[in-house]
Amino acid sequence: MNNTTSFPKSPAWHEVKIEGGFWGERQATNRERTIPAIYHQTKLTGRLDAWKLEWKIGQPNPPHIFWDSDTAKWIEAVAYSVATQPNPDFERQVDEVIDWIAEAQLEDGYANSHFIAVEPENRWRNLRDQHELYCAGHMIEAAVTYFEATGKRKLLDVVCRYADHIDRTFGAHEGQKRGYCGHPELELALVRLFHATGERRYFELAKYFIDERGQQPHYYDLEARARGEDPRKFWAKDYTYCQAHVPIREQSNIVGHSVRALYLFSAVTDVALETGDDGLLAVARTLWDDLTQRQTYVTGGVGSIHTIEGFTFPYNLPNETAYSETCASIALAYWAQRLFKLDPDSRYIDAMELALYNAMMSGVSYEGSLFFQANPLEAYPKVSPYELFNTMMTGDHYQRTAWFDVACCPSNLARMVASVGAYFYAVTPDRLYVQLYNQSHTKLIVGGQAVQIEQHTNYPWEGEVTLTLTMEQPTRFELALRIPRWCREYGIEVNGAAVPTQPERGYVVIEREWQTGDTIRLVMAMPIERMVAHPHIRQDAGRVALQRGPIVYCVEEADNGAALASIALPHEAALTYAFDNTLFGGVGTITGEAVRIEPVQWNSDPYVPASAPQAAPTPFVFKAIPYCFWANRQPGEMRVWLLKT
Amino acid sequence: MNNTTSFPKSPAWHEVKIEGGFWGERQATNRERTIPAIYHQTKLTGRLDAWKLEWKIGQPNPPHIFWDSDTAKWIEAVAYSVATQPNPDFERQVDEVIDWIAEAQLEDGYANSHFIAVEPENRWRNLRDQHELYCAGHMIEAAVTYFEATGKRKLLDVVCRYADHIDRTFGAHEGQKRGYCGHPELELALVRLFHATGERRYFELAKYFIDERGQQPHYYDLEARARGEDPRKFWAKDYTYCQAHVPIREQSNIVGHSVRALYLFSAVTDVALETGDDGLLAVARTLWDDLTQRQTYVTGGVGSIHTIEGFTFPYNLPNETAYSETCASIALAYWAQRLFKLDPDSRYIDAMELALYNAMMSGVSYEGSLFFQANPLEAYPKVSPYELFNTMMTGDHYQRTAWFDVACCPSNLARMVASVGAYFYAVTPDRLYVQLYNQSHTKLIVGGQAVQIEQHTNYPWEGEVTLTLTMEQPTRFELALRIPRWCREYGIEVNGAAVPTQPERGYVVIEREWQTGDTIRLVMAMPIERMVAHPHIRQDAGRVALQRGPIVYCVEEADNGAALASIALPHEAALTYAFDNTLFGGVGTITGEAVRIEPVQWNSDPYVPASAPQAAPTPFVFKAIPYCFWANRQPGEMRVWLLKT
Repeated sequence: MNNTTSFPKSPAWHEVKIEGGFWGERQATNRERTIPAIYHQTKLTGRLDAWKLEWKIGQPNPPHIFWDSDTAKWIEAVAYSVATQPNPDFERQVDEVIDWIAEAQLEDGYANSHFIAVEPENRWRNLRDQHELYCAGHMIEAAVTYFEATGKRKLLDVVCRYADHIDRTFGAHEGQKRGYCGHPELELALVRLFHATGERRYFELAKYFIDERGQQPHYYDLEARARGEDPRKFWAKDYTYCQAHVPIREQSNIVGHSVRALYLFSAVTDVALETGDDGLLAVARTLWDDLTQRQTYVTGGVGSIHTIEGFTFPYNLPNETAYSETCASIALAYWAQRLFKLDPDSRYIDAMELALYNAMMSGVSYEGSLFFQANPLEAYPKVSPYELFNTMMTGDHYQRTAWFDVACCPSNLARMVASVGAYFYAVTPDRLYVQLYNQSHTKLIVGGQAVQIEQHTNYPWEGEVTLTLTMEQPTRFELALRIPRWCREYGIEVNGAAVPTQPERGYVVIEREWQTGDTIRLVMAMPIERMVAHPHIRQDAGRVALQRGPIVYCVEEADNGAALASIALPHEAALTYAFDNTLFGGVGTITGEAVRIEPVQWNSDPYVPASAPQAAPTPFVFKAIPYCFWANRQPGEMRVWLLKT
Repeated sequence: MNNTTSFPKSPAWHEVKIEGGFWGERQATNRERTIPAIYHQTKLTGRLDAWKLEWKIGQPNPPHIFWDSDTAKWIEAVAYSVATQPNPDFERQVDEVIDWIAEAQLEDGYANSHFIAVEPENRWRNLRDQHELYCAGHMIEAAVTYFEATGKRKLLDVVCRYADHIDRTFGAHEGQKRGYCGHPELELALVRLFHATGERRYFELAKYFIDERGQQPHYYDLEARARGEDPRKFWAKDYTYCQAHVPIREQSNIVGHSVRALYLFSAVTDVALETGDDGLLAVARTLWDDLTQRQTYVTGGVGSIHTIEGFTFPYNLPNETAYSETCASIALAYWAQRLFKLDPDSRYIDAMELALYNAMMSGVSYEGSLFFQANPLEAYPKVSPYELFNTMMTGDHYQRTAWFDVACCPSNLARMVASVGAYFYAVTPDRLYVQLYNQSHTKLIVGGQAVQIEQHTNYPWEGEVTLTLTMEQPTRFELALRIPRWCREYGIEVNGAAVPTQPERGYVVIEREWQTGDTIRLVMAMPIERMVAHPHIRQDAGRVALQRGPIVYCVEEADNGAALASIALPHEAALTYAFDNTLFGGVGTITGEAVRIEPVQWNSDPYVPASAPQAAPTPFVFKAIPYCFWANRQPGEMRVWLLKT
């Protein structure tokens, strides 16, 4: 097959207007606090001014190899934001930088602020480590989005010239470099550029990069030797780190750096979508299963160690030292959305929903201007001076910070929050999938005509969703409502009459002739669940995590005092949900009877026989808050997995 | 006070003849396998031949700064061994090396194989990092022991000349360096040299090193600047690593590298013993309490992280990534024995006993020629290639190896096992303390005459100990039997008649006129105990460790299959002890009813609601073996702390 029209399509981000609720509040904070904070930091640190090419050898603060990607993601976040909420200041800030970029672009199309200013002699000499093509990818994504959001094509023209230069430079033809980037990203960006411009060369270039990856003789070996380096001295030891250890079609496990892996397989899925390549699809599905069945935290986050910011081995999911990078949750959503198109099954959206609400939103403070790259599931204060040696801990208290030297996450999060509406629906000519639930309205073409859908809901705090349809004339199509994996009991009414609820691949599909005023009511029971982990996840053995709807909860020292590890939940104890209007603008909380050993009652022996006289556990009322809002009060302990008795 | 005669004294190692049992078998293996393996490795790696000073610049394998300490500890192990079990081959091997050392010693007394051959210009220029005085300390200990064991004084003469050189070089007088070693060890060695030679200058030098440590202006700062280095760039960040952050009298927590700390405080206690300095004793006791109440594993091991091979902060005791260095358990025993002299309380010996049987003996294979430096309390196979980045894991399976580049532990263990008899008793003029129980006999002066003591026991596998006394004529003294901390029920008979058992500071003291043929029978109940940890030790929350007598048990994949984290012990389930003659020459084992979730019965979801249908725990008979014998069969998982239900 090479006809992609039958695949479900996502709406453009600006077609879905989010009106309050969880994502409406997050988008408001994103606009009012996060995007301005990112502009402030990118400006302050020299990332934007780098494009003026004023840096000279010997001066401090040379433009860094990652900087263009940060600038690009800020532009992209602005683009998504202004498309739904015009903001002339945002656009003015972006247009100024685009002028500098256009001015800086070289005659041959090359456009990278680090290599033009700092080390022009090293252009394309170290694809493995230097992120040149990665930066190009983010620039392309920014340009496509800004063009689609504003109609302004100056940056799009720049990146087309740059993509043309890359297309001339890389490939299998005589005189071309047979390389590909150590950090995948350009591949998915080139597919977006193809869709935006219709220029199929860009797609073919993406496909080339994917096919070439991991082939022998290995480009990174050749390239290292050409630099006079021993390829065996690669710091990450082998090319699993960048998913280039074997050709993609031979890969069978999700390995290496998590963001690299998930960007790469997003593009692999794009190529499979476009070419109908069942082999690539099979690899993508196998790796997705490995990711979501054996390498995912209960929060939806992925990537278990800091050292490679990535994967180790199945079921190795340490909580305190979890990496669970904010960017990886975003990249997981990209991949999920693409796999859904090829294979319309709710499990992709289930994983995406979990990551977006929990692991990703932990990445930004409630007020919007402080960020986490790593999102651990347990946090303890550290009093040793050896923080840099001790990967157990990252500071006296792990807290969000305003910026990072390698600052990939803040702007990535800003662009995802600004565009989250694009993940609410998917449509084929005759089916409308409802993927995510949030107060919103949209207008989409289905059944041959424009159908307006209004969602009324207080999801994720309540499980009731009402959809109201408006259209010019009655039309037949299938309405497919996602029944989230967390939901085990639900009912559906259309215009007040119950309808059968047998799901197909995670969706209840209602086919009928719809007309204006039709109302669909989905009521999902949303009990508090004690989640237990697969017995191979040794770090969670004997523990439960609390989840209600798609929201995973945690306990914090602010509510429960310190020594959280000593709190145990009896399995029969009642748990109570309440919505607390006073906390973080209104969030759900869980309280319940637990027990704890009071450390102050313990004697000086660190270990005592269980049968010996000792402090008895005392009743204790604990309070849990949504994990995504942790670390927004006084610094202290946090944990997701609680001991059970 | 400056009269040390009232302190309990330890017997010399050769005064206690160990006859089979746990320590007899370990000593036999030590003689027959471990010491020869160490000789083979020290020879093979060039450590011994380094003293021929044949290495020239440009050649491979230059003598390393640590090498002399390995050679010295091998000599010391041989010395202890030949004193109780003559072995002309061992002595010939040592005498040959001593000839080379004597030949290599410089005119001024300096004797270090690395600095003489490799970088003479850097002698005494980097006390912080280069282990020069540390190596001197081990050479002194070796010389004292070899002299005491064999009467041969060639090495003793060498080290006296070397100590004289050090005494001239370091001190508070004009023209002397005010330095001290980054790795304490020399201090305790100088006290031993003082006792062996009667030369008080050596004691004063030890005292000087202790008093000078951590004073301002800081010697390591001055020394670094003199080398043209920025002292702030010290790799370990600050001088807590080597316990030189503040003067010793101002220290209030056990910090930094564990072996450094415990060697240092052994010497601090020696100085307090000699001088009666209550201030130093108070510091030592405070730090001992911090160590044993907040920084010790249930196996008796200490030091929780690999990066600094040392301490982090109270109650931070990760099991999988535990460092628990073999050398640290030995150093803990040194310190315990010294503190006991100043403050005769069984708690020091309790901590020592636990470390010797468990954390230390895990450091050597059952057959005797393979070693661990780190002794974790949990081990899992690792299938990621990133082992060097991942401090979680040290290999595909963590297994003992024949040698190490930094090989401090094998010869340290060999010298402790060979001399363990010295820890069995302590005597004052009128009291005989029985500290450790093992089949053995000894003759000690107490109550003014030589008393022969025979121990008949199958300790640590059985709790019954019979002591038989032999002496020329009846004499009055106190017999103080240690009641180990693990023991909660016991009875004592003298010549068949029960005696009162109220302990004083951990000892039941029986004062009477003793005569030949008197028999003392101590019967300690030795139930299997489920140990629970202090609620602040978050890594052990919800878990139990099995201990019987002084022996801590573990479960291994070899007996129980993989996925050990999924095994849970119901609190009411019976546990059964049995002595298995077929395993490791005969060891105790524990079996019991447990439950486990069979991973194969789990569905593909990594997390499910506890209330949802899922695999039920199935009954399972587990088997546990002594922790010190783990990793002696096929590679696989191991864990000490088991989930409880």
